[in-house]
Amino acid sequence: MSNASALSPVRLKMQAGPGQPEPSPALEQLYRGFEQELLVPLWTEIGDLMPPHPRSKASPHLWRWDRLVDLASQAGRLVPVGRGGERRAIALANPSLGGKPYATPTLWAAIQYLMPGENAPEHRHSQHAFRFVVEGEGVWTVVGGDAVRMSRGDFLPQAGMNWHAHHNAATEPMAWIDGLDIPFSYYTESQFFEFGRHQLSPAEMTTPERSRSERVWGHPGLRPVSQTEALPATPLLAYRWVDTDRALTEQLALEDEGHAVTLSHGHAAVRFTNPTSGRDVLPTIRTEMHRLRAGGRTRTWREVGSSVFQVFEGQGTVRVGEQQWAVARGDMFVVPSWVPFCAEAGADAALDLFRFNDAPIFEALHTHRVQFDGDSGAV
Amino acid sequence: MSNASALSPVRLKMQAGPGQPEPSPALEQLYRGFEQELLVPLWTEIGDLMPPHPRSKASPHLWRWDRLVDLASQAGRLVPVGRGGERRAIALANPSLGGKPYATPTLWAAIQYLMPGENAPEHRHSQHAFRFVVEGEGVWTVVGGDAVRMSRGDFLPQAGMNWHAHHNAATEPMAWIDGLDIPFSYYTESQFFEFGRHQLSPAEMTTPERSRSERVWGHPGLRPVSQTEALPATPLLAYRWVDTDRALTEQLALEDEGHAVTLSHGHAAVRFTNPTSGRDVLPTIRTEMHRLRAGGRTRTWREVGSSVFQVFEGQGTVRVGEQQWAVARGDMFVVPSWVPFCAEAGADAALDLFRFNDAPIFEALHTHRVQFDGDSGAV
Amino acid sequence: MSNASALSPVRLKMQAGPGQPEPSPALEQLYRGFEQELLVPLWTEIGDLMPPHPRSKASPHLWRWDRLVDLASQAGRLVPVGRGGERRAIALANPSLGGKPYATPTLWAAIQYLMPGENAPEHRHSQHAFRFVVEGEGVWTVVGGDAVRMSRGDFLPQAGMNWHAHHNAATEPMAWIDGLDIPFSYYTESQFFEFGRHQLSPAEMTTPERSRSERVWGHPGLRPVSQTEALPATPLLAYRWVDTDRALTEQLALEDEGHAVTLSHGHAAVRFTNPTSGRDVLPTIRTEMHRLRAGGRTRTWREVGSSVFQVFEGQGTVRVGEQQWAVARGDMFVVPSWVPFCAEAGADAALDLFRFNDAPIFEALHTHRVQFDGDSGAV
Amino acid sequence: MSNASALSPVRLKMQAGPGQPEPSPALEQLYRGFEQELLVPLWTEIGDLMPPHPRSKASPHLWRWDRLVDLASQAGRLVPVGRGGERRAIALANPSLGGKPYATPTLWAAIQYLMPGENAPEHRHSQHAFRFVVEGEGVWTVVGGDAVRMSRGDFLPQAGMNWHAHHNAATEPMAWIDGLDIPFSYYTESQFFEFGRHQLSPAEMTTPERSRSERVWGHPGLRPVSQTEALPATPLLAYRWVDTDRALTEQLALEDEGHAVTLSHGHAAVRFTNPTSGRDVLPTIRTEMHRLRAGGRTRTWREVGSSVFQVFEGQGTVRVGEQQWAVARGDMFVVPSWVPFCAEAGADAALDLFRFNDAPIFEALHTHRVQFDGDSGAV
Repeated sequence: MSNASALSPVRLKMQAGPGQPEPSPALEQLYRGFEQELLVPLWTEIGDLMPPHPRSKASPHLWRWDRLVDLASQAGRLVPVGRGGERRAIALANPSLGGKPYATPTLWAAIQYLMPGENAPEHRHSQHAFRFVVEGEGVWTVVGGDAVRMSRGDFLPQAGMNWHAHHNAATEPMAWIDGLDIPFSYYTESQFFEFGRHQLSPAEMTTPERSRSERVWGHPGLRPVSQTEALPATPLLAYRWVDTDRALTEQLALEDEGHAVTLSHGHAAVRFTNPTSGRDVLPTIRTEMHRLRAGGRTRTWREVGSSVFQVFEGQGTVRVGEQQWAVARGDMFVVPSWVPFCAEAGADAALDLFRFNDAPIFEALHTHRVQFDGDSGAV
Repeated sequence: MSNASALSPVRLKMQAGPGQPEPSPALEQLYRGFEQELLVPLWTEIGDLMPPHPRSKASPHLWRWDRLVDLASQAGRLVPVGRGGERRAIALANPSLGGKPYATPTLWAAIQYLMPGENAPEHRHSQHAFRFVVEGEGVWTVVGGDAVRMSRGDFLPQAGMNWHAHHNAATEPMAWIDGLDIPFSYYTESQFFEFGRHQLSPAEMTTPERSRSERVWGHPGLRPVSQTEALPATPLLAYRWVDTDRALTEQLALEDEGHAVTLSHGHAAVRFTNPTSGRDVLPTIRTEMHRLRAGGRTRTWREVGSSVFQVFEGQGTVRVGEQQWAVARGDMFVVPSWVPFCAEAGADAALDLFRFNDAPIFEALHTHRVQFDGDSGAV
Repeated sequence: MSNASALSPVRLKMQAGPGQPEPSPALEQLYRGFEQELLVPLWTEIGDLMPPHPRSKASPHLWRWDRLVDLASQAGRLVPVGRGGERRAIALANPSLGGKPYATPTLWAAIQYLMPGENAPEHRHSQHAFRFVVEGEGVWTVVGGDAVRMSRGDFLPQAGMNWHAHHNAATEPMAWIDGLDIPFSYYTESQFFEFGRHQLSPAEMTTPERSRSERVWGHPGLRPVSQTEALPATPLLAYRWVDTDRALTEQLALEDEGHAVTLSHGHAAVRFTNPTSGRDVLPTIRTEMHRLRAGGRTRTWREVGSSVFQVFEGQGTVRVGEQQWAVARGDMFVVPSWVPFCAEAGADAALDLFRFNDAPIFEALHTHRVQFDGDSGAV
Repeated sequence: MSNASALSPVRLKMQAGPGQPEPSPALEQLYRGFEQELLVPLWTEIGDLMPPHPRSKASPHLWRWDRLVDLASQAGRLVPVGRGGERRAIALANPSLGGKPYATPTLWAAIQYLMPGENAPEHRHSQHAFRFVVEGEGVWTVVGGDAVRMSRGDFLPQAGMNWHAHHNAATEPMAWIDGLDIPFSYYTESQFFEFGRHQLSPAEMTTPERSRSERVWGHPGLRPVSQTEALPATPLLAYRWVDTDRALTEQLALEDEGHAVTLSHGHAAVRFTNPTSGRDVLPTIRTEMHRLRAGGRTRTWREVGSSVFQVFEGQGTVRVGEQQWAVARGDMFVVPSWVPFCAEAGADAALDLFRFNDAPIFEALHTHRVQFDGDSGAV
């Protein structure tokens, strides 16, 4: 028995405390039996396994944009882009998740970098993805043969199993961020991946101002009669900054005029949605842009599931649990599950925050919860 | 018995034919018994009640825009707008529906006319409504306190139970069309109506270029985070012609570039949708704009439920069952249930057709059917 | 013009009163113009068309079961069942609906009668139907080749477009009631009908205790893994009295034990549902069984849409608007839209009421409303 | 830098191979920079992170029922049940998941054991749970104050956040299995837990034959009119063996009579469903009972997500990937994501298999996939 037990990954120790059995030789032998048979009792694990509320394994953490860009640009010189490596993408690794490329337990966040004239080869995968551009331009992502321009402020979702490639048609390198549900798909073992062509056709390497998807789907409240079903993910491949900025500006203007459309006083927010359903753009990822007036702040809240933020513009202060940071353009940070969050814009200018999180997973499964602080400001 | 029977609305006659019982004195007495007890047998009625396919009581019919405008403008001089009459609206009465103000068995379609400086008083009702502007400008409809400009080509839905009034802020009269589900609500006995204020406040009598609803909801693929539920009807109160026109233009351009987004060759079409759900703007009324290239034509089809069309621009020919008409701007016509329809644009210019119908009712109840003609052109 | 107007079905008269224009020769001429062009103004119609709340065209009315059975049995002797007439069904004709075979504006309710050895030929139609058996037995309805026994208390839904026939395998005649959405389908012009075979095969003329549908679908909370989609209508073809009775009995017993599961005190009620969705058995018809304890009563309520009731067992008093009737087994009555209803069981025994109505139509279209009386008992 | 890097959990090594950059001192320095900044490149990880199809970390594994019962009964003597430990539950620990109490990456499966007269204290949690009884009786689980009998073959779901306790009212110990989504909730950090009372009231310690939930919800196709909304999880707390057995028996009998209701030839299967929606009993866990005729076998298939099976009755052979086992009553085994599975009943008797899996998660997120083998028997 001891031999078999030695090969088992299960290791049990007799413990003291409430709910634990009295240590004894018989108990010791029982635990060895458990190990041998690949069994683990609930009573030794319940405190960790079933806590009163989520206690995230992830930590709040901040990555500075200048460091991300600096390392990505070094990679631009040293690391080619091609088949096998697929993308020059460098992922945020939460300090508490064992060195894995996970910003949070469910979300991947990376900076991607493409040199002038480079092409990232075509592939497709079940993981849902998006790109967000904090600065720069010149890259087109080609999704299902549709070339989509990427420029500052643009949000570009790309649902699972769409073929896609990227090419930099400009004379400067370009960086942007990618968000995916890679950790969730990996953990739940639900992912598929296929390689596509090494090289797109010349007809796909064009650089149109507007993609076909925008020409079909980018009209407010209108859809083609040739496609009237609800789709699981958005068919619109680009949400342009001009629209996002205008929507936020209008919310704050309407607030000034006395109408309640902001999320809280001084805090405008829009969600990117699937025009075929009005729901989130992707089945597993929610994406939003938030704007705080100069001097304004969010309420403090915590929610089930984790978020990644990137500062799009402005300066301010954010607090995540016990952490507090002064932030500026491009800085990225994570808010783990059930950790309180608030943000405050600097006195001189508005603060724009791009956010993505995994809330659609919890809403689909009826386990989402949000808790706002009381009037006292405490959670 | 004969006396009681005489008071009964039921009148039965012995008939000959397949499935009919042999006439006899006993049968005659039975029928009198049915009459007295307010009963009607299936066997005398089934041919009419349960036909092989819909045989509409309504007829195809065309109303000329110049006649509508002429009569409406006479009404502008003779008929005041105010409490009690509520609106200077003049409804299409299908020639086969007994003189009732029903364009089709389920749909109301009317021309509404407002003189310079006039106000239509506030009310609200459970009937769903929309306005569509084939020409002119100068009127604002005020929905829930939100003043919404009405200009050529604009589509303005207004879900049931919203308070609304109209005012003409210009120096010219203005006409537009109203579509409602009044006949359906009347028939199904599901309608509610309330009078509001006789006069709006000065703050509501403004003439903004964009309504609040557009400023909140009129951004493609974006919604406020403060309102994330699906609503039964659209919160967007104006769908502007500039957007509709662009969407149709793009569909035809994409068709030229080899991409399949039109409804059929040369036939572009967009549906107005509720951005909170991607579904029809109103629970009972579908609304669409169709564009045929110069010389182009639709397929021929028939479907369960009835439609009303208005020519927005261009000239062409439409065929509805046995009827065929040359049509031009503003002309309105009805397509009854299960009657074949097709349209063809003139050789010189595109034909734009606004359409509304009752398909959402049938889709919600799983009884919608559409049948397209075969290659031969026959249905 | 006068000639054309004479042919028009539109007839307009100048009226006096609030909201009406001043009568004048010019107005008279305008109205003639409206008639000629098939137009009707809103201002002369609005009071009827858009009332403050539903004012049903239908009347409360009661049909006595003994009279229904008497006339049906006379028809059994005089009227053969066969192709063309299709069914020996005799419909309730609401006294205020012009002698049409409509119990309410949307619902058909009929007594059907089949003599020993008779067969009703196969057909199918888009109209949704059910049968309910207040007494008797011996008939099997054959739906899609599945023979379904009909016995006292059984509820037998049959979704649109299923082939069906009936045969009486016993030595006695049998009567039951049919409910369908024939008036609604007729009015909305959405119906299809097809004749089937004159005679079923011997293999279909069997008389099993349990139908195949019950053997597959009649297990609480279980469904076959081979069929896991939600269906628009129920695949379960029989809801047996033994189950319905037990569910009602349990509700009242639980009420006695202090648990809140009844609809109101002393008023138990179950709804027949589609096991693939938990929703109503048919997309257009809701069906329920209500039980009042001896001496118990319902609350008074009114709702959008109309209902037909049949007393299944017991005696009591019902009030529908201004009408009040003492009722007993088999009696049928209608409750028009928005007319208050309440029922009270006699002192000696419970009162069981079967009800069907058109509420699913209104719920699907978001226009259902129910209003309960206050503590005062007034609505 | 080296110091900071030394503290980082990120460890990167230069690799050779397709898609990898050429090793060099500069690359080495770049990787140290990544480590210091908590960054991980995609190109070193993609092969593991984004495989062509799911490659489960879990292994196929079998636990023998006699060993589970033996160890559980030893625990019955040595380990008290009470506050803190909460339950005498002993979980299957997949041999490839690091000794954690996870049967699969998402699912918890345990044997629970209660001695005569024992009580497991009340608590509630967001994790969804069920119990299934392979043999024995005498325990009542009390859910929200409703005492639910547990007997052989019964399936007892219990949605998240319901208060629950158990008590053994018999003179013998009783064992059963628990299934929960503990690993999924733990991984996604979405769980809540609350302690309840140490001791139930006498009124809750009763031993009724049928629970209140069964008396309200356990009637096929019926629901109380007092509760007509769709609920996320089932309100029915017990699915009795008599019903499950009958449903399976009927499927096989119907197959014999020539009707296609089984999952494949000789393979009957029922799914436990939520009567308010027709969907799975729990938002995250699917539960089914499968029956193979004597000598019959399933098709071979693989699907996204993992399953746990327990043999309820009979003997047979199962194959999971490369593993093959002869199985008998009570034996439990796991099928990891995308690993082919098939089962075959012994020649002498039917084989009944209870299964639970995580498919509702993937269906809700639109990422479920199933692949059946071809005619050749290979996947």
